[in-house]
Amino acid sequence: MKFFALGLWVVGAVAAWAAERPNVVLIVADDHGTDALGCYGNPVVKTPALDALAAEGTRFTHAFCTTASCSPSRSVLLTGQQNHRNGMYGLQHQDHHFQSFDGLKALPVRLAEAGYRTARIGKFHVAPEEVYRFQAVLSGGAANDPESLGRSPVEMAEQTRGFLSAKDARPFFLYFATDDPHRANAVLPGGKPTFDTYPRPNRFGNRDAGYPGVTEVTFDPAQVVVPPFLPDTPTCRAELAQYYQSIARLDQGIARLVALLKETGHYERTVIVYLSDNGPAFPGAKTTLYDPGIRLPLIVRSPGQERRGAVQDAMVTWADITPTLLDLAGAWSAERAGEFDGRSFRAALGGGKVAGWDEVYASHSLHEITMYYPMRMVRTRGHKLLLNVAHGLPFPFALDLIQSPTWVDLQRRGETIYGRRPIAQFVRRPQFELYDLNADPHEVQNLADDPRHRAVREELVAKLRAFQERTRDPWRHKWVYE
Amino acid sequence: MKFFALGLWVVGAVAAWAAERPNVVLIVADDHGTDALGCYGNPVVKTPALDALAAEGTRFTHAFCTTASCSPSRSVLLTGQQNHRNGMYGLQHQDHHFQSFDGLKALPVRLAEAGYRTARIGKFHVAPEEVYRFQAVLSGGAANDPESLGRSPVEMAEQTRGFLSAKDARPFFLYFATDDPHRANAVLPGGKPTFDTYPRPNRFGNRDAGYPGVTEVTFDPAQVVVPPFLPDTPTCRAELAQYYQSIARLDQGIARLVALLKETGHYERTVIVYLSDNGPAFPGAKTTLYDPGIRLPLIVRSPGQERRGAVQDAMVTWADITPTLLDLAGAWSAERAGEFDGRSFRAALGGGKVAGWDEVYASHSLHEITMYYPMRMVRTRGHKLLLNVAHGLPFPFALDLIQSPTWVDLQRRGETIYGRRPIAQFVRRPQFELYDLNADPHEVQNLADDPRHRAVREELVAKLRAFQERTRDPWRHKWVYE
Repeated sequence: MKFFALGLWVVGAVAAWAAERPNVVLIVADDHGTDALGCYGNPVVKTPALDALAAEGTRFTHAFCTTASCSPSRSVLLTGQQNHRNGMYGLQHQDHHFQSFDGLKALPVRLAEAGYRTARIGKFHVAPEEVYRFQAVLSGGAANDPESLGRSPVEMAEQTRGFLSAKDARPFFLYFATDDPHRANAVLPGGKPTFDTYPRPNRFGNRDAGYPGVTEVTFDPAQVVVPPFLPDTPTCRAELAQYYQSIARLDQGIARLVALLKETGHYERTVIVYLSDNGPAFPGAKTTLYDPGIRLPLIVRSPGQERRGAVQDAMVTWADITPTLLDLAGAWSAERAGEFDGRSFRAALGGGKVAGWDEVYASHSLHEITMYYPMRMVRTRGHKLLLNVAHGLPFPFALDLIQSPTWVDLQRRGETIYGRRPIAQFVRRPQFELYDLNADPHEVQNLADDPRHRAVREELVAKLRAFQERTRDPWRHKWVYE
Repeated sequence: MKFFALGLWVVGAVAAWAAERPNVVLIVADDHGTDALGCYGNPVVKTPALDALAAEGTRFTHAFCTTASCSPSRSVLLTGQQNHRNGMYGLQHQDHHFQSFDGLKALPVRLAEAGYRTARIGKFHVAPEEVYRFQAVLSGGAANDPESLGRSPVEMAEQTRGFLSAKDARPFFLYFATDDPHRANAVLPGGKPTFDTYPRPNRFGNRDAGYPGVTEVTFDPAQVVVPPFLPDTPTCRAELAQYYQSIARLDQGIARLVALLKETGHYERTVIVYLSDNGPAFPGAKTTLYDPGIRLPLIVRSPGQERRGAVQDAMVTWADITPTLLDLAGAWSAERAGEFDGRSFRAALGGGKVAGWDEVYASHSLHEITMYYPMRMVRTRGHKLLLNVAHGLPFPFALDLIQSPTWVDLQRRGETIYGRRPIAQFVRRPQFELYDLNADPHEVQNLADDPRHRAVREELVAKLRAFQERTRDPWRHKWVYE
């Protein structure tokens, strides 16, 4: 009898929470740069669903991942801690085998504790399961698995229907992570993976048979917009056309998901976040801390937002996502702030000017286990300082980048410039790089040794060291011991 | 009724096994080099129990770990796979956070499946627990924990009494891993670890109060034997005296363990193996693949051995330990050979000449997470070839080595030679090192670029690449992509 009464009280309390607490849908694309969205200024690619989300919400112009590598970036997204603090120093799958420290509580666990029901679908790529546990796994997917549901975004959306339609008064958290528009992995006879399709472009998951519910949109290589970090070559254009097609497919999955949220009556009470783990899978973006690798789309559509179609230039990072979503979910407490390297940017939703959002930090440790190349970065509105800890090594190329036809083609032709940057400079880097982002937005002229920039260099080095101390970076001892 | 009959049959079968299958005691010391055992020729240090074991068993003169780093080395020992294959690329504790792949079966699990009861005591330092599971944990111990029981070897031995005395017909496997003679870790106010006691010597776990059951043996710094890789300085001698004292204590724990095996009636049916995870904790040994780091004590006392006090010069490695112990336990099957990178050296026990044991391989990947320095090695009786994959980086010094008073002292005095080797050469290494071990046993004259040694270099490079392929080394792709 007592239990029954308690049960009723709990149900009542939960129902009351639900009214205050929005649902949360976090959509994470794989390797989608700001270079290829309509709402970010690309007139060719077709992203009507994302553009509509931006028109209803807030579009961030200065949003950054903190590491341009899949697993580490997702770990930051979901823990609010830098990869060097949460232990996910590199990729999770296969030989790489990185995972976060036991005992951490990632966003889904925290939201579940706050009364949310939680589910994930699509790419996961973090570990261990306990740290990142969702109550429901609607469909998992291995990294780079050509059979992954993450390539079929409309099907993915459809598979959330049961979760969205459940008769359950609790608010929900849905983590929706596509494999699009990552490069597609082929498997050679014998099981060895390859991304190399040269001279044909990689197909970025596009296939002749298409995908259920998707109207494939194809693009004319002559029409694509080649961003400044890429070479304007026929091979690159052909690859960009494939990349766009993959993005157009992904966009249709988002359209279907939004439609489902409306159909199930949740839309008005749902925060929707769209972002990408890191920049596009071309050399010069992914795995680097140059802007094409880390400056990314971030669109937040929040029920409480008064001004629609807002544009926000606050500098935020993926370390801020978990604090922000906890804040929006009413599950934030100030005493917990020390557990996070980021903070809530809730006040920035709606596009109003917010103070104190004018610098960001990034940290890359490894990508594949053999690709040790720790970099630390501080970026203000005017400058970027990079510390290349292992500057004695050549910059390591991830398999999907070194095998990209765009790169292979350039190498075969013996080119020495890639995009705006000499290849030699890209491969061999000094300990410090300092760029004046106003004069040199493509980060080509390293000013680190320029006496006229000594003051800014010293200021940024001091900031970087403080960041490393604050975030308990294991690599901070290199300042002392190397 | 049926079950009962089956139960009786199982008990009977287990009893029959026990008669055939020896118990196994694997004793693993921490950072104990061949430089400091009586039976390996050191006339000063006091190791009567180890010397007695050697007098009853087989002493190996060419035994090698495959990586001179604690967790990786232990992972090889217990899996029979190279660290680069089992996933334990570096240290397990704290930020370093390496662990072997799920699904592997380490020696204790395999022996348990073969009907052994299993227990461990002392240092563990491998993960995950499931892969390396022992049925009983008599006492665990964190890495570098000053309070660890692993510093008190006689107490450790005493704590195995219950396990050894159990009325159980099954054979047993006891894993006995001391913290001695590792450098002692002090904890500074604020929790930061330090090994730095300069100008006083590190105490290697020795303490004024002594340890229960131990008669501390002290040594005169003037009398210690300074091995060729170390500088003959007062500071180093003072440290060696402390190191010896730690070894003498460890030896007393082994004496007590042997006495207990006799007291419990197990001794005659027990295989006892003594070895160290890697060389001593001085720069030039531990974390390197030079001989002081990897050429280690190995003493095997086996019940079936006819000739006592044998000396064996077969070249064996820690990758062979698991296959050998499975073989001795009657738990080896030829179909499983592909699961191991080592093989059984059972035939070498007793000291007889065995064919086909004339080269060994080693593989170091990282030590601490910030200490990426993959090295691969092939060593024959005459030559050693080293591949320094990350030769663009300075050789990283582990905290216990860079803070060693021996090293600090040398640095403060501005010395340029350490042992027999120029410091500059130790810190900055080329891609390849080739040593003629007969002419140059201390590995100082690099012949890799000497045209007269081109043939041997090419032969050894080919062997090394074949080893990397055979053992599925993730770093093998560097041959193609860097």
